[in-house]
Amino acid sequence: VLSRPIHRFSFNQATANRWPTPEVIDGCAAAGVGWVGLWREQTQEYGLERTVAHLRAADVAVSSLCRGGFFQRDDWLDDNRRAIDEAAALGAPTLVLVSGGLGESDLDGARRRVAASIADLVPYALDAGVRLAIEPLHPMFASDRCVISTLALALDIAEQHPDAAVGVVVDTYHVWWDERVYEQIRRAGPRIAAFQLADWITPLPAGVLTGRGLPGTGCVDLARLWQAVDDAGYTGPVEVEIFNDELWNRPGADVLRETIASYDAVRSTR
Amino acid sequence: VLSRPIHRFSFNQATANRWPTPEVIDGCAAAGVGWVGLWREQTQEYGLERTVAHLRAADVAVSSLCRGGFFQRDDWLDDNRRAIDEAAALGAPTLVLVSGGLGESDLDGARRRVAASIADLVPYALDAGVRLAIEPLHPMFASDRCVISTLALALDIAEQHPDAAVGVVVDTYHVWWDERVYEQIRRAGPRIAAFQLADWITPLPAGVLTGRGLPGTGCVDLARLWQAVDDAGYTGPVEVEIFNDELWNRPGADVLRETIASYDAVRSTR
Repeated sequence: VLSRPIHRFSFNQATANRWPTPEVIDGCAAAGVGWVGLWREQTQEYGLERTVAHLRAADVAVSSLCRGGFFQRDDWLDDNRRAIDEAAALGAPTLVLVSGGLGESDLDGARRRVAASIADLVPYALDAGVRLAIEPLHPMFASDRCVISTLALALDIAEQHPDAAVGVVVDTYHVWWDERVYEQIRRAGPRIAAFQLADWITPLPAGVLTGRGLPGTGCVDLARLWQAVDDAGYTGPVEVEIFNDELWNRPGADVLRETIASYDAVRSTR
Repeated sequence: VLSRPIHRFSFNQATANRWPTPEVIDGCAAAGVGWVGLWREQTQEYGLERTVAHLRAADVAVSSLCRGGFFQRDDWLDDNRRAIDEAAALGAPTLVLVSGGLGESDLDGARRRVAASIADLVPYALDAGVRLAIEPLHPMFASDRCVISTLALALDIAEQHPDAAVGVVVDTYHVWWDERVYEQIRRAGPRIAAFQLADWITPLPAGVLTGRGLPGTGCVDLARLWQAVDDAGYTGPVEVEIFNDELWNRPGADVLRETIASYDAVRSTR
C-alpha cells in the first residue's frame, strides 16, 4: 500500500540512478507524484525531446535540473549555457549549480571565479527564464566538488543579482551542521530556489559521495529545517535526493515507494 | 640527511600511532625535536610516571595532551578531571578537547551541553594550571565526534571564560574551508592555545578519520594559515598531527623524518 504523497513531494532521479528516465517519470505519475528532479546525463541519454514529450504525456513537472556549475573547467561557459537551454526546454524553473572544487586555484580565487562565472551567466539565464540556484555543498566537498560550502557564502554571491536570476538550494545534508543555518535560511527568504531533504548517516563510505540516508534514517532535524524554509516563505516542491549505493542497487519502483514513505514520515512529525 | 628542525616543531604521536611512547620521545630527542604532542591512551599504556620520567631524561616537553571532551558520555566529569590531572603531571600546558557528537540530543542542545560542561571544568583546570583548548572539528565529524564545527563556535564558548582557562585549537585540516577562518583567527588572538598542521587530500577513505595528508601533500594553504596564526600573536609550538593509515603502517622513525621534512618544506614557503 502506497502512502498518498502530498503535492510538494518531488522525486529526484539521482535517488534511483539506474532507473531509466521514462520509467522514473511513469513511476512518479503512477504514484501520484507531480514533480521530478532530473539530471542532465540521464536526460541526454534518453534524449531531451523525448524526455520533454514523456513528461507532458505523464503530466509530471520538473522541479529542478541538475546540474550546471563546475566553473573551473575550460568549457564551463558553453556547457552552462547548454544546461540553461536544457532546463528551459524541460520547463525546469531551476538549474542547480555545483560550483566546482579548488582546481589549481587558491580558495579565495576559486570563490571569486564562481562569482564571476555566475555573473557572466545571468543575462543568458534571465533570457531563458531559468533561475540559477547556487547549492552550497558540505565542506567535505570543498576541495574536489564545490568551494561554496555554506549558505552564507552562496547568498553573498546570489545577492549580487536579481531574485529571479539567482537563488540558492537548501539541501539539509549539506547545511544541517552549520550554527548559522537558521539565521541564513531567514536571510535567504525569496532566494530559496529549491529545498532538498536528505539525512546524515555514519560511517561515511570511501569517497563520501554515496553516504546519504533517506529522510528519518539519520541525525538531521529535518522537520525543523523544513519549517524554517517554509517560514522563510518557500512554497515550492520538496525534493528528496539521496546518493546511496544500497538504494542504487534496488529496483527503482521500490526506491520510489520507500522514498515517499520516508518523506511522509518526516512530514507527519512537523 | 635530516633537515634541522626549528624550535617550534612538535611531533604529535598520533602521526606514528604504533610507535611506543618511549621510542617517540627518544626519537624526537635524537632528531632535535623539543616538543611532542601526547595522547592519553598511549601515555596510560606506558604509564604516566614513566612517561614523565622519560620526558625529563630526554629533555622533551609536551606541547599538548589529547584529549578531553566527549561530554555526552556518562563519565565525562570524572574522565575530564583525570585528563586535566594527567596534563598537569606531564607539564602539558594544554588539554585538547574533542567535544563529542550529537549523542541523543539535538544539535543546539548538544552545543549547550558542551558549553555547560566546559564551564563546570574551568575551576578545576585553573587550579591545575592546565588550559582547556576547544578544538573545532571538520563539519563531517559533527554527528559522531564533535558538534563544535567552526572556530567561531569554539570562540563563542571560550570567550565566556578567562584566556588562561579556555582557548582554542586551530588545526588546518578542520578549518581551512571556512570562509570566515582568517577573520576568526584574528578574533581568537590570545585564545589560540595550539596550532596543528595537516593537509586535506582526496579521496577520503571510509570513515573519513584517517584521510589526512602530511603538510604539502594536499590543497590547504598552510603557509597562509600559519602566518595568520602568527599575526594573531601565537608564538607557541606548531604540531603536526596526521591520521593516515599509510603512515601508520611505516616505522616510526621514518614517519618522524618525513614529518619534519614536510614541516620544513611548508616553513620554507612562508
